[in-house]
Amino acid sequence: MSLLNDLQWRYATKKMNGQAVPQDKVDYILEAARLAPTSSGLQPFEIIVVTNKELLQQIHPVAFSQTQITDASHLLIFAAWDKYTEERVNGVFKHLNAERGLPENAGDDYRNRLLGMFGGMTQEQQAAHAARQAYIAFGIAIAAAAEQKIDATPMEGFNNAELDKLLNLEAKGLKSVTLLPLGYRDEAGDWLVNMKKVRRPKELLISEIK
Amino acid sequence: MSLLNDLQWRYATKKMNGQAVPQDKVDYILEAARLAPTSSGLQPFEIIVVTNKELLQQIHPVAFSQTQITDASHLLIFAAWDKYTEERVNGVFKHLNAERGLPENAGDDYRNRLLGMFGGMTQEQQAAHAARQAYIAFGIAIAAAAEQKIDATPMEGFNNAELDKLLNLEAKGLKSVTLLPLGYRDEAGDWLVNMKKVRRPKELLISEIK
Repeated sequence: MSLLNDLQWRYATKKMNGQAVPQDKVDYILEAARLAPTSSGLQPFEIIVVTNKELLQQIHPVAFSQTQITDASHLLIFAAWDKYTEERVNGVFKHLNAERGLPENAGDDYRNRLLGMFGGMTQEQQAAHAARQAYIAFGIAIAAAAEQKIDATPMEGFNNAELDKLLNLEAKGLKSVTLLPLGYRDEAGDWLVNMKKVRRPKELLISEIK
Repeated sequence: MSLLNDLQWRYATKKMNGQAVPQDKVDYILEAARLAPTSSGLQPFEIIVVTNKELLQQIHPVAFSQTQITDASHLLIFAAWDKYTEERVNGVFKHLNAERGLPENAGDDYRNRLLGMFGGMTQEQQAAHAARQAYIAFGIAIAAAAEQKIDATPMEGFNNAELDKLLNLEAKGLKSVTLLPLGYRDEAGDWLVNMKKVRRPKELLISEIK
């Protein structure tokens, strides 16, 4: 199988059957997200995996009662940093230098330029920048789920502020960005499963300047 | 090979060797991006493929003189819709219904709710929403390039406004979001190629609520 076949196979599953996704598959998808590239390697987000049934029941209405929230076995919540702090940025560089066996001050010029750049942004702009990085990982997690034949429903449709409150994300300096319930399609109950996959035509989406 | 292996193989190539990526590989990567899921299937972006050497020379300084711009054989420019217009949204639904053999008014309630939602956003919020969708496709294109053993350098570091002007994107209702030069690593000339890939530790990035 190739990624193109996997992407043809996947679809935004509307009805899941409640079957549990094995832990090794969940770990695989999470590891793919962890390996996603991000701006300056900062990975300004966290992924919260919810398997607690009571909590999923509480999230259900916050996500406009979409049934995948409770029929999935694992709900991945992508939550981005609400801002770039010196502590956060320095922590990434400290870890990078330690892992590469470099001196503690390696990359200091670059790190200081980054801090200056973020310092010139409003907190809202910083949060938006961080959210976009989470979307790269989100895209790669979707691809990884498809490769592993795990159904997943990319979701933006939920009340972010309410979910942040429910999970106490503000105290952690996070803002929920997207959801990815993982599970298995309910072939009989899903109206979308046999619908043709439609994308905007190549001619409208892609152009070349030769 | 698996996607995890591909993601381990890839890195943000700093020096490319100028060798041309075959067209079928470029098409594969573009098709993966086209298949990426987006909010309500709107795919609110375009991908501009630049192979024109003169234009790449002009883009080079706009992208802070990063050498991959001119050493890559293909530069993918992800450009998002600057706003959601009725014409754009209606066009997507018209195409969807035609492809699925549904009546022209299928999904009208949903379409109208979408238009209402976008209508309640500022143009800046609409552009930000569209940009995030482009990031999903960007992430999936990065994964596809890695699977095909094509080197790619995800780039946010460029002067968006200048690039938009150079490519006349405003007239097309687009805003450049990210760049993805495609090519082959120059093993001898790339300082990053043999550096350890470092990511934030799993324990910091991922948590579970059981």
